[in-house]
Amino acid sequence: MNKKNFLEVVTSSQTEMVDITSGLQSKVEELDLESGLLVVYCPHTTGAVTINEGADPAVRRDIIKVLNSIVPWDFDYRHMEGNSPAHVKASLVGESVQIVVENRTIQLGQWQRVFFCEFDGPRRRKVWLKAMSS
Amino acid sequence: MNKKNFLEVVTSSQTEMVDITSGLQSKVEELDLESGLLVVYCPHTTGAVTINEGADPAVRRDIIKVLNSIVPWDFDYRHMEGNSPAHVKASLVGESVQIVVENRTIQLGQWQRVFFCEFDGPRRRKVWLKAMSS
Amino acid sequence: MNKKNFLEVVTSSQTEMVDITSGLQSKVEELDLESGLLVVYCPHTTGAVTINEGADPAVRRDIIKVLNSIVPWDFDYRHMEGNSPAHVKASLVGESVQIVVENRTIQLGQWQRVFFCEFDGPRRRKVWLKAMSS
Repeated sequence: MNKKNFLEVVTSSQTEMVDITSGLQSKVEELDLESGLLVVYCPHTTGAVTINEGADPAVRRDIIKVLNSIVPWDFDYRHMEGNSPAHVKASLVGESVQIVVENRTIQLGQWQRVFFCEFDGPRRRKVWLKAMSS
Repeated sequence: MNKKNFLEVVTSSQTEMVDITSGLQSKVEELDLESGLLVVYCPHTTGAVTINEGADPAVRRDIIKVLNSIVPWDFDYRHMEGNSPAHVKASLVGESVQIVVENRTIQLGQWQRVFFCEFDGPRRRKVWLKAMSS
Repeated sequence: MNKKNFLEVVTSSQTEMVDITSGLQSKVEELDLESGLLVVYCPHTTGAVTINEGADPAVRRDIIKVLNSIVPWDFDYRHMEGNSPAHVKASLVGESVQIVVENRTIQLGQWQRVFFCEFDGPRRRKVWLKAMSS
């Protein structure tokens, strides 16, 4: 995949949300997407992408803590790698987001930021991008 | 954002699902989208968009009740605004849906309707739309 | 809907994940989508589509088991058909995925496969497809 079409994310905890918004905006400029849709896609099965509040770091801390309490660490899991909870969270949060782009600028709500969700870190991750012109 | 490109939604409860299907169909006609994809995007961090059954109002009531039971109201939350459960639900349900459009008509399954999900209302909300031609 | 634009899925349990990846790849070739986005859409309100690990069948078994434990079978449900848990899971997992296509090939991460999620089976299901060229 072309260098323009992905973003690298380094995570530092087992579970965390990493703000990738400014990286995405830079890519939209590099990709020269004037107006359309930016698809942000996680190619990993123990991570996800979401959009949520970015102003107060306590929000992402709360989201991660609740996800970790909803999806049990201890359960009758059969997958032997021990990361089944991460796979469940990946399907609950979702592997991609679609962002509207106008005037070479990603369109987000006032409090929104885009986050890579790490559920089985720390790891080096990639997020794939696809520019769709309208 | 151009008036054609959003829909206003007024919610009346703290948590509820509001059917926005007919509003979306009108916008597809206004936007003159013959065939393609309609992106329905929630710019708020305590709301979401989903597609589910619309025939029996009990379904949306049940979905909201279960979401409210899965995501605890009372928890070791750090975000001081008191609406962390709403932020969690937003990331679980997701901020957007993508709907196929053919012949200027949104394509939904027999029982499907599109809902704005309010998780921290009542409020005046907006849903952004992006028409992608195929 | 044109025959090229959907995939049939036959499920055999009340809740399960069925790998539809190779069917999707065939459709991309039939639809002659060189580069763009493949939208995979579930028109049912008690099913969903997700992307997750496909190498070890235990992963999908674990995901289904945890979803079935998170969303209660027994609850103060009002919807009289008895399948409210399926509707809740549909909104948690989501009705569609968007897959990047390059060189007439769906682009997935090393361990990723695409799954139809059955939450109220066994049934005969359809998944709608929309090819968006970039």
